[in-house]
Amino acid sequence: MKKKNSAPTMKDVALEAGVALGTVSKVINGLPVGESYKIRVEEAIRKLDYHVNSYAQGLKANKTYTVALLIPNTYHPYFGKLAYQINLSLLKRKYRMLLCSTEYDPGMEQEYVKMAQQNKVDGIIGLTYNPDLKVDDSIPFVSIDRSLSPHIPCIASDNFAGGQMAAEKLADLGCKNVAFLRIGSSLTNEPNKRKAGFENGCLARNLPYSMKILEDSASIDEFEQFLREHMHNGRLDFDGIFCVTDRIVYDVRKILLKMGIRVPDDVQIIGFDGIKDFGEGDYVCSTIVQPVAEIAEMCVELLLQENMTTKPPLVCLPVTYAYGGTTKEQEYGDENK
Amino acid sequence: MKKKNSAPTMKDVALEAGVALGTVSKVINGLPVGESYKIRVEEAIRKLDYHVNSYAQGLKANKTYTVALLIPNTYHPYFGKLAYQINLSLLKRKYRMLLCSTEYDPGMEQEYVKMAQQNKVDGIIGLTYNPDLKVDDSIPFVSIDRSLSPHIPCIASDNFAGGQMAAEKLADLGCKNVAFLRIGSSLTNEPNKRKAGFENGCLARNLPYSMKILEDSASIDEFEQFLREHMHNGRLDFDGIFCVTDRIVYDVRKILLKMGIRVPDDVQIIGFDGIKDFGEGDYVCSTIVQPVAEIAEMCVELLLQENMTTKPPLVCLPVTYAYGGTTKEQEYGDENK
Repeated sequence: MKKKNSAPTMKDVALEAGVALGTVSKVINGLPVGESYKIRVEEAIRKLDYHVNSYAQGLKANKTYTVALLIPNTYHPYFGKLAYQINLSLLKRKYRMLLCSTEYDPGMEQEYVKMAQQNKVDGIIGLTYNPDLKVDDSIPFVSIDRSLSPHIPCIASDNFAGGQMAAEKLADLGCKNVAFLRIGSSLTNEPNKRKAGFENGCLARNLPYSMKILEDSASIDEFEQFLREHMHNGRLDFDGIFCVTDRIVYDVRKILLKMGIRVPDDVQIIGFDGIKDFGEGDYVCSTIVQPVAEIAEMCVELLLQENMTTKPPLVCLPVTYAYGGTTKEQEYGDENK
Repeated sequence: MKKKNSAPTMKDVALEAGVALGTVSKVINGLPVGESYKIRVEEAIRKLDYHVNSYAQGLKANKTYTVALLIPNTYHPYFGKLAYQINLSLLKRKYRMLLCSTEYDPGMEQEYVKMAQQNKVDGIIGLTYNPDLKVDDSIPFVSIDRSLSPHIPCIASDNFAGGQMAAEKLADLGCKNVAFLRIGSSLTNEPNKRKAGFENGCLARNLPYSMKILEDSASIDEFEQFLREHMHNGRLDFDGIFCVTDRIVYDVRKILLKMGIRVPDDVQIIGFDGIKDFGEGDYVCSTIVQPVAEIAEMCVELLLQENMTTKPPLVCLPVTYAYGGTTKEQEYGDENK
């Protein structure tokens, strides 16, 4: 008899069904047993409200069906969307996701990797910034936006193509003199290729360009200083700006408003990421859109792929341009209504 | 000797240290052993890079140090912030968090609760919409925004006070005729008290008000119709609007723009939630701010509290008003710079 306040065990199910313990185990694990036995076991499971103890199962199979996601936070709209999509991609495959908010802290990132190893998760997906992050070979790891080692797949947008696309779009929209504004991590990572792509696009289209690259620790005020230095006779030298993220477009628009420069009339701006109002409204600015759902799927697919002897070291996924109010013409056929 | 490609076990540590298995166990579990033994065991742990198998430990202690968070998604800025804050509150207590994106789906919510029980998590925090959600008494559960049963603590903002605050603020800002706009779940839940609070505030201040309450499935166009019905001689009847969420302020502003009504000059608007641009910029509108960090802390605190015979059935946490550009005057002393 099942005691009160104690969850029924496999043994209780066997007793209730009047079968051997091995038969219960076979039914639970989907192995072939006689139909009448199967029915008796399933009835006993229902009657006792027996739940498989996944911890015991995980210990036995050496599988936890759990993946850890390391990401700075979920309140930045890009990270929030990415965490959501990875969660869905894992769910489709019956995997659970541990959310590990790292707050960009290298120590926390390393601690989470260690914790994930201790807890024997089946894999780790990491969007990390620790330049010396140590990752144990024993656990599958997929990195977003940054190559950690040749054995660890890195998944990113095609950042180079995105930068180039921004330059070409500004040229198509009639810009004659453009600027590139960047602030962020000085780590070697995939998003840094946006700069090279943009330069390449400007050169290909004979579009003169200036650059202002700020370090992580810099103040956004330095962009204001840079823009003010490029004011002559009450007009801005630039008629087009490519900002390395939509977040920077947000800051730059505030600076331009203060300076009395109109967007998009005086200067057109393109950002990068594809952030939408409330995660689902309009694009917050004209932007190069990262394919978040595809990035999530690719991360999960490569992470859980067990029969692959060589995993691709770098996967770049195609980006698209979307109109979001900070450029002059609305394009036909874009995603935005 | 430790075999390659296989994690060291407690036995390996005992062999390496030249002590009994029980001694290793005592050191790992912080029980008293002779200092020299302790040093030898710790050295062996370091040398072998031994990690405690948390699965085995969890099985033994019947603890997983894992909490499941059920939330519709992380791309809506309110949910993204809440998931982040709960993650931090759990981390402080050395707990891990399983993120379970439910997409408002009642079936998925129930499945996640079942999954969480099967996986023997130590507790569940849920922001759910399933009217018939079945929650097993055996696992601690804390609900956000909705009472599930008298035995399950419900944590929410003080929504009634927030609605009242919105009415009083509009009165203070000189409004003479106001409207309340709501769309959303018809479930009995805490956010529904915003309406009663608003009515109460209007009555207390002798402020005439109209209401437009839409069901979940309704189109936002019905707000446009309602507002157009209240246009006379090119002017809107209302000089103040309280929207039940910041998300609705976003939609209503677009409608008003189309109608040629200026915000805040012609009509002042207050929302609810406290959403900021990019999760950390300016408030997207003047708003009643939910205390997200405090809600997260209270959820985790009550969930993990084991020595409480009676847990509070409903906890309401204080809200604040913040200026965000859709009201006329910037208040002194608010959160927003």
